[in-house]
Amino acid sequence: MQARKNIAVIVAGGSGQRMGADKPKQFLHLSGLPIIQHTVQAFLDALEDIEIILVLPKAHLAMAAAIIPKLSKPGSITIIEGGATRFHSVKNGLAQIDDPAVVFIHDGVRPLVSSQLIHSCREHALKYGNAIPAIPMKDSVRQLFPEEGINKAVNREHYKIIQTPQTFLSEIIVPAFETTYNESFTDEATVIEQTGHAVHLVDGEEGNIKITRPLDLIIAESLLNNS
Amino acid sequence: MQARKNIAVIVAGGSGQRMGADKPKQFLHLSGLPIIQHTVQAFLDALEDIEIILVLPKAHLAMAAAIIPKLSKPGSITIIEGGATRFHSVKNGLAQIDDPAVVFIHDGVRPLVSSQLIHSCREHALKYGNAIPAIPMKDSVRQLFPEEGINKAVNREHYKIIQTPQTFLSEIIVPAFETTYNESFTDEATVIEQTGHAVHLVDGEEGNIKITRPLDLIIAESLLNNS
Repeated sequence: MQARKNIAVIVAGGSGQRMGADKPKQFLHLSGLPIIQHTVQAFLDALEDIEIILVLPKAHLAMAAAIIPKLSKPGSITIIEGGATRFHSVKNGLAQIDDPAVVFIHDGVRPLVSSQLIHSCREHALKYGNAIPAIPMKDSVRQLFPEEGINKAVNREHYKIIQTPQTFLSEIIVPAFETTYNESFTDEATVIEQTGHAVHLVDGEEGNIKITRPLDLIIAESLLNNS
Repeated sequence: MQARKNIAVIVAGGSGQRMGADKPKQFLHLSGLPIIQHTVQAFLDALEDIEIILVLPKAHLAMAAAIIPKLSKPGSITIIEGGATRFHSVKNGLAQIDDPAVVFIHDGVRPLVSSQLIHSCREHALKYGNAIPAIPMKDSVRQLFPEEGINKAVNREHYKIIQTPQTFLSEIIVPAFETTYNESFTDEATVIEQTGHAVHLVDGEEGNIKITRPLDLIIAESLLNNS
């Protein structure tokens, strides 16, 4: 039997407009290196045999290519062009996968993912078919009912904040992405949910933050300096 | 007609166990000063005439008293003992209020609240009776259904993260707290909601974080240094 590969599809499609920077956010520097370089290196460090499929908008392909030689295993990385939405970008990434694999789908702007979380996701995905990291909601939350113009308290213990790497067996995630795109596909878990799979949550990490605002870059810098 | 007072009930009841520190979290240092000192000073700086009611567990009263002389207007601060839950602590604080007031109820461990947010809450509370600061949910969220053992994606745009100062006219919040305590009272908005008031949300601030974990203290330090 063929060994199952480890493949990370890292999606870095954002234009970075929320950051107010001239560079796309995934190329902003964190401790002196582009965010995306930290992210890719985290996966290279976690699993010896991992293959990385880095999905970016056409305009950023050259900028990404310039980073590859700086990584520890440049030969393990393929850069491909993304699509109109995250769903289409991930689909382009999945199209590269031929062999049975554990597939990690990860935000390019979550550079602080730990090896421990990557391994935990892998083990749970092997057992349950998928593994979606989630952390508790620590704040009070209210639900909006826009049509009624009201809002109501909810029990925060019944909600979880979802992170990446969302991790799947290839035989589950690849066919799931054959479905027609719909706007509710905000992440990969929603895609497999739509195709009838139960979503299996695993414990995520508070420090595995997504860098979308200038404040997040400051936080990430602190986390790196204090880790 | 009597002028309406401005009164802040600042609740600092946590034991700080999540911080893993030997001091209660509200007394941990942020940029060289106790967190609670930053919090009280923020209200003193925002409104010239503000009166502060600082509510703490009995064990921390002396530690708080030692901070008062270091604040800009020590005469504006009253320290009182809290109760078994946040609800009971706030109720003890509200019992000090006799005159018509705008009442800000604020977490002692949210030291980065801005003058701008305090003023915005005050204006909305004067207009709508209450003002509850809320920020958008920026992550994907799933709802748990513990009885069915499943979870489902929700539309994050229909949820808001709630902050403090939760701000009220005294004639609304004081009677609302005459109600019998129940476990769903995780904040003051849930108390007025239970007594039939519509909750009015105002825009909160990303930087108005609650310090409950060691990571939060690092983040707060960064925010202070970069503000």
